[in-house]
Amino acid sequence: MSLIVAKFGGTSLASPDRIQMVAQRLVALKQAENEVVAVVSAMGKTTDELVSLARALNTDPPAREMDRLLSTGEQISMTLLAMALSARGYKAMSFTGRQAGIETDGIHEKAKIVKVNTKRIRKALSQGYIPVIAGFQGIDQNGDITTLGRGGSDTTAVAIAWGIEADACEIYSDVDGVYTADPRVAPRARKLAAINYDDMLELSSVGAGVLQMRAVEFARKYKVVIHARSAFSDAPGTYIKEATPKMEEAVITGIAHDTSEVKVTIRGVPDMTGVAAKVFSALANSMVNTDMIIQNISEDGITDISFTCPDADLKRAQETVIKVLPEIGAREYDIDEDIAKVSIVGTGMKSSPGVAAKMFKALGDNEINILAISTSPIRLSVVVDGAQTAAAVRCLHTAFDLDADSVFKETQLSAEELAAKMEKGR
Amino acid sequence: MSLIVAKFGGTSLASPDRIQMVAQRLVALKQAENEVVAVVSAMGKTTDELVSLARALNTDPPAREMDRLLSTGEQISMTLLAMALSARGYKAMSFTGRQAGIETDGIHEKAKIVKVNTKRIRKALSQGYIPVIAGFQGIDQNGDITTLGRGGSDTTAVAIAWGIEADACEIYSDVDGVYTADPRVAPRARKLAAINYDDMLELSSVGAGVLQMRAVEFARKYKVVIHARSAFSDAPGTYIKEATPKMEEAVITGIAHDTSEVKVTIRGVPDMTGVAAKVFSALANSMVNTDMIIQNISEDGITDISFTCPDADLKRAQETVIKVLPEIGAREYDIDEDIAKVSIVGTGMKSSPGVAAKMFKALGDNEINILAISTSPIRLSVVVDGAQTAAAVRCLHTAFDLDADSVFKETQLSAEELAAKMEKGR
Repeated sequence: MSLIVAKFGGTSLASPDRIQMVAQRLVALKQAENEVVAVVSAMGKTTDELVSLARALNTDPPAREMDRLLSTGEQISMTLLAMALSARGYKAMSFTGRQAGIETDGIHEKAKIVKVNTKRIRKALSQGYIPVIAGFQGIDQNGDITTLGRGGSDTTAVAIAWGIEADACEIYSDVDGVYTADPRVAPRARKLAAINYDDMLELSSVGAGVLQMRAVEFARKYKVVIHARSAFSDAPGTYIKEATPKMEEAVITGIAHDTSEVKVTIRGVPDMTGVAAKVFSALANSMVNTDMIIQNISEDGITDISFTCPDADLKRAQETVIKVLPEIGAREYDIDEDIAKVSIVGTGMKSSPGVAAKMFKALGDNEINILAISTSPIRLSVVVDGAQTAAAVRCLHTAFDLDADSVFKETQLSAEELAAKMEKGR
Repeated sequence: MSLIVAKFGGTSLASPDRIQMVAQRLVALKQAENEVVAVVSAMGKTTDELVSLARALNTDPPAREMDRLLSTGEQISMTLLAMALSARGYKAMSFTGRQAGIETDGIHEKAKIVKVNTKRIRKALSQGYIPVIAGFQGIDQNGDITTLGRGGSDTTAVAIAWGIEADACEIYSDVDGVYTADPRVAPRARKLAAINYDDMLELSSVGAGVLQMRAVEFARKYKVVIHARSAFSDAPGTYIKEATPKMEEAVITGIAHDTSEVKVTIRGVPDMTGVAAKVFSALANSMVNTDMIIQNISEDGITDISFTCPDADLKRAQETVIKVLPEIGAREYDIDEDIAKVSIVGTGMKSSPGVAAKMFKALGDNEINILAISTSPIRLSVVVDGAQTAAAVRCLHTAFDLDADSVFKETQLSAEELAAKMEKGR
């Protein structure tokens, strides 16, 4: 008998029919003599709808109210799942974040868990109940509801798994595991049986959206093994766990790409001390998350400065650049929205020289121009033209021996099915 | 400066636009130097939608989960109203039933308030906030959410008004007050400036749906004056308060009608001791709320027994009668769904003889046949044929000198507008 935490995302709970499927899956776990705790996200698009309602009334809604509002999404799905389990003759009881003992700091909309008090959950388990816990939310020391930010339900699942010392933390979603690359882009991508926490975090940070980063950080800190798997099949997914010698065999674990950044270039900048500082401190003050920075070699004391930032920050970035242009005596700026960041990630990189050379050669052989580079100890990222995204991912996938023998079946899916698969719950 | 509790029903909060109107009304109260506490129902049809979702998953959902689910409706509207107030530059803070200190017994789906702890509300008021409280809900001694039953938001408003010793408890809805009769049926109906608690309770019990009965009972017990008024106009509504000599001048305060009951007649019943007891204890065991009972004069030791009950109980009543028929040796039964109960209500009745005679004469003069009669010290009810409902209400309205000089303007409304007006929030 195992004690299993099973977390289900919004897509898996989008309709009464899907909630029934989730209930059936939990019942199957019970019938296989397991103890089960469910953690749920809000149904389908509920969170987005609530956000729209809020914005219709207040363009900058108070964070406390926003958290209170959004938390109702998970509270609806948890009660419905508990009802579906009861209808099948199983004792089930729903728990809000507060009732599940998720205590957080008071930072609304992105609260951090400070304590997990699983007394009530343990009691419910000992009484034969299936506890169904609202993900994404906790309570601060004032008794106010807080939310953990997008993807927070994954974090709830990991925290509960740690708190009750579960044997497994299964995160069910519409994605059936972690792949060496996005199979929609790289048809020879392979599902990884296992990946270590560091590689998973690094992949997540550069665009692989299977799991929420904070959940993986929490899991790494407390050594919780996550099993990321499909809500719609029984096939095993990917285990996210500590590195083992066997896991480190491959130099590169996976390739991620991210087309949600834009590149801004400021032209005709006087090449003087403090100019870059002025630009980037102004951007920081405007809450623009600059990612990569490129400063060209100066000619006649004049240079260009480029940076990349998320699409969502572009408006603020533009306003800031316009304000800063005359201050630094620069000439003009332009924006390139059609770029992609392609990253190779692998803990094995640390002990394998020549990875960068191999990457640049593969790209060069395929006539893919590198617009910017950034690195971490276990990651190499390049910015390329958006139109070359798939070509870049594919040639790197081949160059680093990641290709599967067979072509990924998902590439047979229609555009609509692919789009549905691309939706990420929180 | 007054301290005002203002409660808004679901129709007044059905859309972002309407929430803005409610916010504007609260701001106007603040600008007139009042302290204000808002109590809200769920938006529009939210509660019905949540009930449908639940029933899709479980035909008999656990009451604890149902309460938890339904309570999200008010939690959504309270946060949205708080956001709308913030957008107007007013400090607002939402409170769930738990946070507002509404403590109840543990009877889910129809909990009773056992304690009102308004410490947090008082504190928020002293800090200049407009507290916005989720109606309809409280918390039991286990920390589980309970709901107060349909109309429970009115009860929350009265309880809070009592708890904070408010100067006024204003209940805003799509109805602009209490009328001498339903203006849609009696075009000469008049809005009452005031009505005493007993008359209001009695009118509510026989079909006048302006206020929830438990709210009026709570108000009577704790001497809270309610002002029932329109959310869509500034005109004064009706005060519900203790009887004063002036209020008792009229013998009859108002006339109510109710077409939601059905009449069941069991025919060919042996006129023997214990037969009626057998029928009505079987009905009680099946949770059928029998209202009026009529036993005809026996002929040859054989009689008929009729009773009325709510539409909603008809199926259970029918099943019970079918089971009981052979046991009591009765012949057959029939059902009349097209009946109406018409009631005249007035505390003044107690000191005015001849009210019943006057009622029966008015009905007789208008050739309206009385199918059953029931009474209380301040009420006389008759069952008539459904087709004669309006005729009965109108002739009684005239006979008891309730007619206004002018015809009610609402009778000019379209059928749709009337239907919209008939919707009752909770």
